[in-house]
Amino acid sequence: MYYIGVDIGGTTIKSGIVDRAGNIVLKSAITTEKIPPKQQMEKVGEQIIKLLQSSNLSFDDVLGIGVGCPGAINGKKGIVGYSSNLKWTNFHLKDVLERVTGKTVRVANDADAATLGEVIFGVAKDYKTVIMLTLGTGVGGGIVIDKKLYEGTNGMVAELGHIVLRANGLPCGCGRKGCFEQYASATALVRITKEYMLKNKDSSMWNAVDFNLDKVDGKTAFVCEKQGDKTAKRVIAKYISYLSEGCLDYCNIFRPDAIVFGGGISKEGANLTDRVVGYLEKYEYGYKGTPKPAILTAKLQNDAGIIGAASLVAEEF
Amino acid sequence: MYYIGVDIGGTTIKSGIVDRAGNIVLKSAITTEKIPPKQQMEKVGEQIIKLLQSSNLSFDDVLGIGVGCPGAINGKKGIVGYSSNLKWTNFHLKDVLERVTGKTVRVANDADAATLGEVIFGVAKDYKTVIMLTLGTGVGGGIVIDKKLYEGTNGMVAELGHIVLRANGLPCGCGRKGCFEQYASATALVRITKEYMLKNKDSSMWNAVDFNLDKVDGKTAFVCEKQGDKTAKRVIAKYISYLSEGCLDYCNIFRPDAIVFGGGISKEGANLTDRVVGYLEKYEYGYKGTPKPAILTAKLQNDAGIIGAASLVAEEF
Repeated sequence: MYYIGVDIGGTTIKSGIVDRAGNIVLKSAITTEKIPPKQQMEKVGEQIIKLLQSSNLSFDDVLGIGVGCPGAINGKKGIVGYSSNLKWTNFHLKDVLERVTGKTVRVANDADAATLGEVIFGVAKDYKTVIMLTLGTGVGGGIVIDKKLYEGTNGMVAELGHIVLRANGLPCGCGRKGCFEQYASATALVRITKEYMLKNKDSSMWNAVDFNLDKVDGKTAFVCEKQGDKTAKRVIAKYISYLSEGCLDYCNIFRPDAIVFGGGISKEGANLTDRVVGYLEKYEYGYKGTPKPAILTAKLQNDAGIIGAASLVAEEF
Repeated sequence: MYYIGVDIGGTTIKSGIVDRAGNIVLKSAITTEKIPPKQQMEKVGEQIIKLLQSSNLSFDDVLGIGVGCPGAINGKKGIVGYSSNLKWTNFHLKDVLERVTGKTVRVANDADAATLGEVIFGVAKDYKTVIMLTLGTGVGGGIVIDKKLYEGTNGMVAELGHIVLRANGLPCGCGRKGCFEQYASATALVRITKEYMLKNKDSSMWNAVDFNLDKVDGKTAFVCEKQGDKTAKRVIAKYISYLSEGCLDYCNIFRPDAIVFGGGISKEGANLTDRVVGYLEKYEYGYKGTPKPAILTAKLQNDAGIIGAASLVAEEF
């Protein structure tokens, strides 16, 4: 028995056949077009049919289809409430794809699906209650409780980058001020790196970016710190403190079994997680005597979209 | 059929028989003694037996016994991990009380039980996913998801007063700095009131407390604001902004159906909730286009302990 995972992005839509162990058997990609969502999803239906034909499998071999989609999703109804990436509004995705394929379809926000993917098939397989923080352009997130994706009554949950880390702090795109995302995203790390560089003209980070601030990225400080640069070390310490403060918040709310980091910054691996663990230990994981969650790095990475989407149907079985 | 609710406090232990509608049929209180927890809970067993005798009911009329207890509780195992109020450590409460009474016993943290009580029997009866914030000496909390108490894998969850509102802000008893509790508790409101009074010697709040700062309490600013005092108005606006920022965090994480305020400050009722609603509206409940949770005042108040504890067994039925 197999699952189908569909990863809808702003430029491409990837579909894949996933086996029970969470391996992608076969996948394909089509371009996301500027057409009405109904037509687009009918094309995805065709994409899936072709994929099955190429693999010598049929719909009888498929338990269901999971779809990860950016934006505000009502998973219970299978509706895309609003997706700014796709410009889709109030679209009954589940209905359309079920009609085309004849299979059960489950839709979720892409970050939520990626979180469930890590719990069902990825690094958090041995854990039940898991928080995932995706450290990229922003800070995304997902919540899995007792191996089930938390979707709330009407979806649009787990905006985990949008809790306040500093009331009246830096303005955030969401309209609030001082959100976690403004301090713990890759974008934030780049900003902090530049701030420290401007105040420390002798830092080796200047050489690393050819004296061009525009070349600073999320790796600059990590790389230069390993080479012994003191300013880079302070940048990383600052970033770790912000990221860890958010983690302590989630420890105190959920007392999760694990926190998983995804997104660009998570590629630092143990270099990142070991430091976060150090900070969390210092603050006793938020509260004296509480259980210690494991701090992990996402495993699925590039295939997180397809495998996460597939996990939406795998969860039920 | 009836439920028994037991509310364990540092000075008294209250037990009550609760009917299916959430009304207390009969209750009694005994003094919390400085004796080993096993002996104490055996006395609670006797208390329950006497209560049933007085009411002409028997154990056959009782579905189960719920116990609300301060401290870190592992509800799944029925163990009091640690309670600083009671000085109990690693005590198998459920086992002892089940042996004495022969009935099924479920234990939870008292704030968690109070939250479930509001959802099963109180103001949040029509809501499924509910966050409760208890605004007292500190800020306590509870999380109910889909009408079930969230307990995590090992308990000790929903320390909702201990998320950071201001990184590196005021020191908190938990060891962190800038916790929500330091800005949104009754204690915090008293501190803010005093700060503003000291800077505004013409405020009518000075008259209200007979020019004695020690008489300032959580009502001072609320009362004087109604009488038109401008300084009091600024105090309340400040407090509301802090409380609401925490609420916005919980909106973005859970997108709950309702947020319920309990504790001393909640007695302001609509005067408090209307203002919080105003602030939340301004920030679109955390994120543009998201569902709006109801903002409610706890209903059970003085009986929240017994009824909340009883709801622990009612939840299952």
